[in-house]
Amino acid sequence: MLIIGERINTSRKINKELVIENAVRNRDADYVVKLASDQVDAGAHYVDLNCGTLHEGEAHSLQWLTETIQARVPGALCFDSPSAEALAMALEVYDTGRGQPMINSITAETERFDQILPLALKHKAKVIALAMDEAGIQPDGQKRYEVALALIRRLTDAGVPIDDIYVDPLTFPIGTGSDFGVVMLDVVRRIKDSFPDVHVTAGVSNVSHGMPARKILNEAMLVLAMGAGMDSAIIDPMDRHLMALIAASESILGLDEFSMNYIALARAGKFEGL
Amino acid sequence: MLIIGERINTSRKINKELVIENAVRNRDADYVVKLASDQVDAGAHYVDLNCGTLHEGEAHSLQWLTETIQARVPGALCFDSPSAEALAMALEVYDTGRGQPMINSITAETERFDQILPLALKHKAKVIALAMDEAGIQPDGQKRYEVALALIRRLTDAGVPIDDIYVDPLTFPIGTGSDFGVVMLDVVRRIKDSFPDVHVTAGVSNVSHGMPARKILNEAMLVLAMGAGMDSAIIDPMDRHLMALIAASESILGLDEFSMNYIALARAGKFEGL
Repeated sequence: MLIIGERINTSRKINKELVIENAVRNRDADYVVKLASDQVDAGAHYVDLNCGTLHEGEAHSLQWLTETIQARVPGALCFDSPSAEALAMALEVYDTGRGQPMINSITAETERFDQILPLALKHKAKVIALAMDEAGIQPDGQKRYEVALALIRRLTDAGVPIDDIYVDPLTFPIGTGSDFGVVMLDVVRRIKDSFPDVHVTAGVSNVSHGMPARKILNEAMLVLAMGAGMDSAIIDPMDRHLMALIAASESILGLDEFSMNYIALARAGKFEGL
Repeated sequence: MLIIGERINTSRKINKELVIENAVRNRDADYVVKLASDQVDAGAHYVDLNCGTLHEGEAHSLQWLTETIQARVPGALCFDSPSAEALAMALEVYDTGRGQPMINSITAETERFDQILPLALKHKAKVIALAMDEAGIQPDGQKRYEVALALIRRLTDAGVPIDDIYVDPLTFPIGTGSDFGVVMLDVVRRIKDSFPDVHVTAGVSNVSHGMPARKILNEAMLVLAMGAGMDSAIIDPMDRHLMALIAASESILGLDEFSMNYIALARAGKFEGL
């Protein structure tokens, strides 16, 4: 399971304040380094960097975040922006010695695809491929599956290795339609049936948008999606219960031989108090 | 999701003491009534009664438990014994006004099947049907699936309505074989594919036997099994996190229209502190 830590996102509020945006604006290196290192310590394989709320300052901020974090924190970075300019500036300074970079995200929208594909190829980046095109996100599962399949084919035809593609099946909040969870799980299963070697990732927390007790819904969504074949997630790795459920699900799904990782985490006290 | 509360089991130890066995031996009505009512309050639809450790005292104890609990606690009862004598004595005094009785369990073992089937028919009981025969539990998924299918057919041929059959696919502990979880989930899926109207239940906690941090493994197993089609579980309904995950999974799996039940439970404070 490839864990992408979502905490460095300038749109995220802490006690209703845009604390992260302010830290990035003020170039508060210690603050963002701590945000990154906490996530790596908690088990994130990639640290996602999103400073989309800075608008015209985004590209320089993403580059600053990249340089600042990689100078002091191990672990690979995931560049989260629809802007080719911002992605290019970050990828340019990224130290590939720490692992392949990851681009979050490409879509089947023509302009975005054409701008971001060359960056993925040039930097041998892993790419998160959102199952959406010019028409937006299809509520219908069959259509969303078709968009995902076409996007995977375009990427592999262009030379992106299948092992570098992380499809995000996307979902609408369960509060806006009782079948959206079922549709999402079905899309995951069908993508994996069609392309067993492609990866599937998701920012599972969108499913609980607008609902009470979101944490529990996110936990259930994550485990159910793993059961359907999802092998990566964009989550908060500081959520200990969620991380514990990932380890447990890997054990039950036969992805953790002799449950050695689960047992090691338990012995290290990672599940204490849960 | 049909919840069967597992706490009244005389083999269960509390702080290494056979507290429940002692309470049953001493006919401590207040103690067992509290054990039952706590589970019903927590959301159990059935309260399982198991006093197998009392051996020759089992049948009379099961009857005493039945009369004692139904006099003071609402909710239906599930009689958990391989002994036809014990089941008969409990079923004889059971007040069907509180819901169909449930028998836990019948198997494909000839003698057990022949003794318990007439009780299920006479009392119009729901039956938990374990996927095992004279040869014991098959580690192989295909064989276990075949045993389950044959048992379902024998029960329906004998006149047990399909809606009253709760198949338990059984599993070995994950600590004894990395693929046992995958096999169990596959058996659940295949049983539901073959008989969409049959129910599937399981005492999911067996999967974590001998492992550390069992609670988390049980949570993951339960959610994964629900994703595969399981619609009942034999669990500890006092485990608030487990119960919350069941409600969340029902919401995501489209089994809780407009997530009304989930939202109601959240508003009632059931998920507080999780």
